[in-house]
Amino acid sequence: MIKATVKELYRDPEAHLNEKVRITGWVRTSRDSKTFGFLEVNDGTFLKNVQVVYGDELPNFKDITKAAISSTVSIEGSIVLTPDMKQPFEMKAEQITIEGKSNSDYPLQKKKHSFEYLRTIAHLRPRTNTYSAVFRIRSLASYAIHNFFQEKGFIYAQTPVITGSDTEGAGEMFRVTTMDMNNVPKTDEGDVDFSKDFFNGEANLTVSGQLSAEAFALAFQKVYTFGPTFRAENSNTTRHAAEFWMVEPEVAFAELPDILDLAEAMIKHVIQYVLNEAPEEITFFNSFIDKTLIERLNTALNTDYARVTYTDAIEQLKESGEKFEYQPEWGADLQTEHERYLSEVIYKRPVFVTDYPKDIKAFYMRANDDGKTVAAADLLVPEIGELIGGSQREEREELLKERITEMGMDLKDYWWYLELRKYGETKHSGYGIGFERLIMYLTGMKNIRDVIPFPRTPGNAEF
Amino acid sequence: MIKATVKELYRDPEAHLNEKVRITGWVRTSRDSKTFGFLEVNDGTFLKNVQVVYGDELPNFKDITKAAISSTVSIEGSIVLTPDMKQPFEMKAEQITIEGKSNSDYPLQKKKHSFEYLRTIAHLRPRTNTYSAVFRIRSLASYAIHNFFQEKGFIYAQTPVITGSDTEGAGEMFRVTTMDMNNVPKTDEGDVDFSKDFFNGEANLTVSGQLSAEAFALAFQKVYTFGPTFRAENSNTTRHAAEFWMVEPEVAFAELPDILDLAEAMIKHVIQYVLNEAPEEITFFNSFIDKTLIERLNTALNTDYARVTYTDAIEQLKESGEKFEYQPEWGADLQTEHERYLSEVIYKRPVFVTDYPKDIKAFYMRANDDGKTVAAADLLVPEIGELIGGSQREEREELLKERITEMGMDLKDYWWYLELRKYGETKHSGYGIGFERLIMYLTGMKNIRDVIPFPRTPGNAEF
Repeated sequence: MIKATVKELYRDPEAHLNEKVRITGWVRTSRDSKTFGFLEVNDGTFLKNVQVVYGDELPNFKDITKAAISSTVSIEGSIVLTPDMKQPFEMKAEQITIEGKSNSDYPLQKKKHSFEYLRTIAHLRPRTNTYSAVFRIRSLASYAIHNFFQEKGFIYAQTPVITGSDTEGAGEMFRVTTMDMNNVPKTDEGDVDFSKDFFNGEANLTVSGQLSAEAFALAFQKVYTFGPTFRAENSNTTRHAAEFWMVEPEVAFAELPDILDLAEAMIKHVIQYVLNEAPEEITFFNSFIDKTLIERLNTALNTDYARVTYTDAIEQLKESGEKFEYQPEWGADLQTEHERYLSEVIYKRPVFVTDYPKDIKAFYMRANDDGKTVAAADLLVPEIGELIGGSQREEREELLKERITEMGMDLKDYWWYLELRKYGETKHSGYGIGFERLIMYLTGMKNIRDVIPFPRTPGNAEF
Repeated sequence: MIKATVKELYRDPEAHLNEKVRITGWVRTSRDSKTFGFLEVNDGTFLKNVQVVYGDELPNFKDITKAAISSTVSIEGSIVLTPDMKQPFEMKAEQITIEGKSNSDYPLQKKKHSFEYLRTIAHLRPRTNTYSAVFRIRSLASYAIHNFFQEKGFIYAQTPVITGSDTEGAGEMFRVTTMDMNNVPKTDEGDVDFSKDFFNGEANLTVSGQLSAEAFALAFQKVYTFGPTFRAENSNTTRHAAEFWMVEPEVAFAELPDILDLAEAMIKHVIQYVLNEAPEEITFFNSFIDKTLIERLNTALNTDYARVTYTDAIEQLKESGEKFEYQPEWGADLQTEHERYLSEVIYKRPVFVTDYPKDIKAFYMRANDDGKTVAAADLLVPEIGELIGGSQREEREELLKERITEMGMDLKDYWWYLELRKYGETKHSGYGIGFERLIMYLTGMKNIRDVIPFPRTPGNAEF
């Protein structure tokens, strides 16, 4: 008796023809006539189910026909090739043990459910084809990212989730506290006394690991982060979640074009890995979610990504004659409609837009010699818009201090970040990629809530 | 001109003998006489420095001799083998460019600093030998863990950091909120009105991804988490941090002994990977931090781990004649002194202690038939004590409900966790490993603050 997984059976059914096989899994569908029945069984190792045929010679035939969907089963039998049928093989059962009976009100019956509904049963939705494919691809893409950076000698830096202050300046943050909300300690002046809190000061959830990653890059040369980040923005869109994962490589001695090469190589590596390891899942998404997916991924895999300056891109948008909701204008940020038009219509492939106006970008980006722009770049891709944002960092201590002061921030808050310059100015660059955006890009899924195991959005931290 | 890393030079100096080489890095030490000088340069890719020799034929000879430690340099020259010297080769410089001057008050001068002091400059400490070795091993061990599980077909589930309630019951939690602490919204009854908070209810930082991982294991069969977890315990010990990373595999159709096999294989895989990829670092730790390290790692790599029931272990401790601070007693938790005695003195290798009294273990652990113990296990290792805690999970819906009620918890809080049983009871088991404990085990470092890039402890969320 050989214990086999469904994946093993699909990958090489012939190998199992001359032996007894045992599988364990869950009933996905069940139908029967008076003398025989069919179970489709999934064991979680593969997108597809095994069709199991059983007859009334089994002593528990009646019990099997009555077992509700999602019952846990252990099946012994033999594999039979079925070249004339939809599935390449089926399993002829000699023994079926019902390890755990499901209840007849199991919500995932054969009928199709909306993604909205499935979000309300996030503990069960990984058992559907769509979500099992999404989360398998999410896992493979995670590994592809680690694999890509580790093979190149990057150090994985697990930067902190809890941070002392909003030094990244990237928007609304969640507070982390152990103070009694019913009785918040106050100072003599009547202000909240954060010195009484767990960390003896204010603490928040990080919005980016970049500043910490810079410290590590200036020791290890090549590093990356890969961890959860947070935004307390009260916006209910298909692209925003309160908790999401980011990948942030940071490279010393690298200038902006170097990390654009790195980003392009990383995207191609991840696409190639997922195409190799999850061909059934990608085919599934191309059939049922987004008919252009495979073509889009192949383009991203096989073309050189375009590069255009922000200034030229604005000109191209203006000259396109396209009616945009927001008129493109030098000095204003690109809207998603602009980003998609650039990648989908003008370049028809991923495109890096570089050298943005300094006033719409973060304080740490390196000033260009023109005095107006910074060495920043975004990667825009069809269907998604911005997938990656990166920059060369301002390594010149004096210019960085000026910029911090100019933006009304306090130099004291940045003492250690400035010391990274004081003790040897070193050119360095990095980028960040929102991991969920990447999964949406790889699957064609349109809502960020559908690519996160248990999504957190305004009003929702269930499960 | 070939751009080379220090690691490449060390791995194969001969390969670079007949070419001009360029390296970029940071000055670690500098000494000079009237006509020549030596720089030790580190570029972050390797534990060791390259010794660079330069002479007064260089036009900027004086500037180089004056460059402070940590200055950023770019060096062109040739590699010369030095078989009679401590280092296997040195670099004869033909050109040295000082890319960024450091300041003379750079705190990491040659003299030895205490770990306590280095924690106050966590942004610079990765530039020391000890911390560069620690964080390189941390990165390699992270990858070894992903590699181990992915090659076995496990799905990486990124479980949420923000959770709706304290369902894991594992101790003090941090609150996550966007409410104005100066003006906390109250209900008519005068209680804090959490319905006004971001998630329309109370939210905390997770203490474990296990319950979420169970939902995924019952869809994918084999899953693991690897992410940050949190404890708001106000304890200043060398083993506790407020933020730390955990690895939590969860396997459907697995009983307790199956996951002990898995845990043992995982530990061996990680040790082997680190020994292969970081031999210089391990040698360094064995020389300067813990003289028994390599012997301990080799034992853990090459022996079968012992297995003993808690009941037998208590007997063995009692019969040992050893004077413990806390007397071992059936029904009480093992103290670190007991755990270390078992692994260091009695078994002299890693040992799984199994089947603990149910009253000292969590509600979700599977009841044994004796009515007194549960199918739980801890892995105890020399020097560290508990490294892994795992259990078979209670899959029987009725027994789980009874246990939840018995422990005074509310069944409603566990509705989805119970549904995982309602819809097909499935045997499953898993374990958790504190990643920082593992790094301490792999390096011999004695304080958890010294194996986390930017540690968070009571009163400390700096950087």
